[in-house]
Amino acid sequence: MSSATVTAAAPRPVLVIHGGAGVISRDLTPERRRLVEADLRAALDAGYGVLKAGGSSLDAVSRAVVVLEDSPWFNAGRGAVFNHDGRNELDAAIMDGSTRRAGSVAGVHRVKNPVLLARAVMERSPHVMLVGDGAEAFAQTVGVTLVDPSYFRTEERWQQLQQALQAEVAKQEAALPPAFRHGTVGAVALDAQGRLAAATSTGGMTNKRWGRIGDAPVIGAGTYADARCAVSATGWGEFYIRTVAARSICARVAWKKESVAAAAQAVVMDDVPALGGDGGVIALDAHGNFAMPFNTEGMFRGWIDRDGKAHVAMLKGE
Amino acid sequence: MSSATVTAAAPRPVLVIHGGAGVISRDLTPERRRLVEADLRAALDAGYGVLKAGGSSLDAVSRAVVVLEDSPWFNAGRGAVFNHDGRNELDAAIMDGSTRRAGSVAGVHRVKNPVLLARAVMERSPHVMLVGDGAEAFAQTVGVTLVDPSYFRTEERWQQLQQALQAEVAKQEAALPPAFRHGTVGAVALDAQGRLAAATSTGGMTNKRWGRIGDAPVIGAGTYADARCAVSATGWGEFYIRTVAARSICARVAWKKESVAAAAQAVVMDDVPALGGDGGVIALDAHGNFAMPFNTEGMFRGWIDRDGKAHVAMLKGE
Repeated sequence: MSSATVTAAAPRPVLVIHGGAGVISRDLTPERRRLVEADLRAALDAGYGVLKAGGSSLDAVSRAVVVLEDSPWFNAGRGAVFNHDGRNELDAAIMDGSTRRAGSVAGVHRVKNPVLLARAVMERSPHVMLVGDGAEAFAQTVGVTLVDPSYFRTEERWQQLQQALQAEVAKQEAALPPAFRHGTVGAVALDAQGRLAAATSTGGMTNKRWGRIGDAPVIGAGTYADARCAVSATGWGEFYIRTVAARSICARVAWKKESVAAAAQAVVMDDVPALGGDGGVIALDAHGNFAMPFNTEGMFRGWIDRDGKAHVAMLKGE
Repeated sequence: MSSATVTAAAPRPVLVIHGGAGVISRDLTPERRRLVEADLRAALDAGYGVLKAGGSSLDAVSRAVVVLEDSPWFNAGRGAVFNHDGRNELDAAIMDGSTRRAGSVAGVHRVKNPVLLARAVMERSPHVMLVGDGAEAFAQTVGVTLVDPSYFRTEERWQQLQQALQAEVAKQEAALPPAFRHGTVGAVALDAQGRLAAATSTGGMTNKRWGRIGDAPVIGAGTYADARCAVSATGWGEFYIRTVAARSICARVAWKKESVAAAAQAVVMDDVPALGGDGGVIALDAHGNFAMPFNTEGMFRGWIDRDGKAHVAMLKGE
């Protein structure tokens, strides 16, 4: 067996993560950018460590997303935004590409790491999607860590809610920065066995109400993986649901025979904007090819490719 | 202009509905079958009346689904099954193919016609998906009819919950009839302007718990419509979410260039069973071609095609 054949049979692992689209460079001090990038690197290290040790892509995306959920700088877990009622309301999903098992939770208030609850739904319940108090009751039965809601309270997010409430009264929501609509974290990974996985976690939109659910926990919209393609999105949720963005990218790869880059580009840059939405995705195929298109000013992202080196970026062209 | 050209420019409307897969003929008395078929015909009449008068496919699917929600014989609205806590917990979604606007609600307990709330979410909120108490609060702000939860209590569904609870204690859930897993109602329509729409409504699984959400309210899974293809599913929800069944059917039509019949067949008869699931769908394209595949013993369904006549069926080959 030639060494080229061995390489083809055992792909080098790849990990790609995002920390949300919609970031605007002028809102970000150099110091904050350093903090954000340090946590992106920590997430890459955690996830890639799993892959390097021969672990599964499912474990890798779980680990990477937990690090981002634990950071105060991203709209997920600890750093989640506030809803209209002044609560942090969290959504997450995970999907295992090789089996297409999936788990999802929405509208939880006390789950420290929603991605771990989504994974427990996938592995320890007969269901795929659990919401609200019921999802938290399930969390208790399986021992997923619950915290006091005050754990999620950061002053910066609280001030953002006040800003959004004032904009609402003044009917100037359109003037709010796009980051108010689509902060999210996510990861996609390919392991040495050639298996793909995807995970996404979010606090949703600042000032959301009425039990609003965005695309992150909707399998096919914000999170999707199969044997050939894995996607995690950070878009304006409503538009990513309507375009079934993640599944559509993978369907184009499967049936339109597009590359993952062309497919992600078509959905993020053409289809979603045609309906009036914006955002970005990370998309990865089973050969290790990946793309990170977004049509907002910035998208926090990071990747470790075949060279084994961590890269992080924020603006276009970085 | 030849008359053939005129026909192509102004398609004859088509309406297809379902009242749930998983029905088993031996569980059904002739009298019950007559009652079910009468309500399927009433739903066809209501929806097709809209189309005949030049109304929209969106209005047609809303009207047809309301009739099925108001009937006690289907697992949606009035006839919804009970969850583990002895409550009726309703989900619905609607999607307008020509604009890909969509609305969805999940986990509501007091909304008389969940499909109308889903439509209000689509038309009168900036969101696509609302759940639980928040969705009911939104219902109140837009004047969607709420009822006392006792409205949904039918003796037959209550007895089914008792049966499911006993099966759970005896660890014999697998012996429960498939209808315990996937009662649902839905409609797809093509109007004279060539616009497609889809709607689905359900009470979910008997004895469901933990805020479980199935495929019906998940855009792309149980409900989806675009300019070329509309689908409403009645499957075992978890498997229809994992395969993103409705979007996958329409993606095959768009990009694999399959007929709607071949695409629906591939997902319902091959892809979902490969994962261990079952169920059925109704699928319709913009030329008026439709398919109603299912891999359970029966699926309540009805259609009015170009001949303008109502047809209803339950078993295979009918």
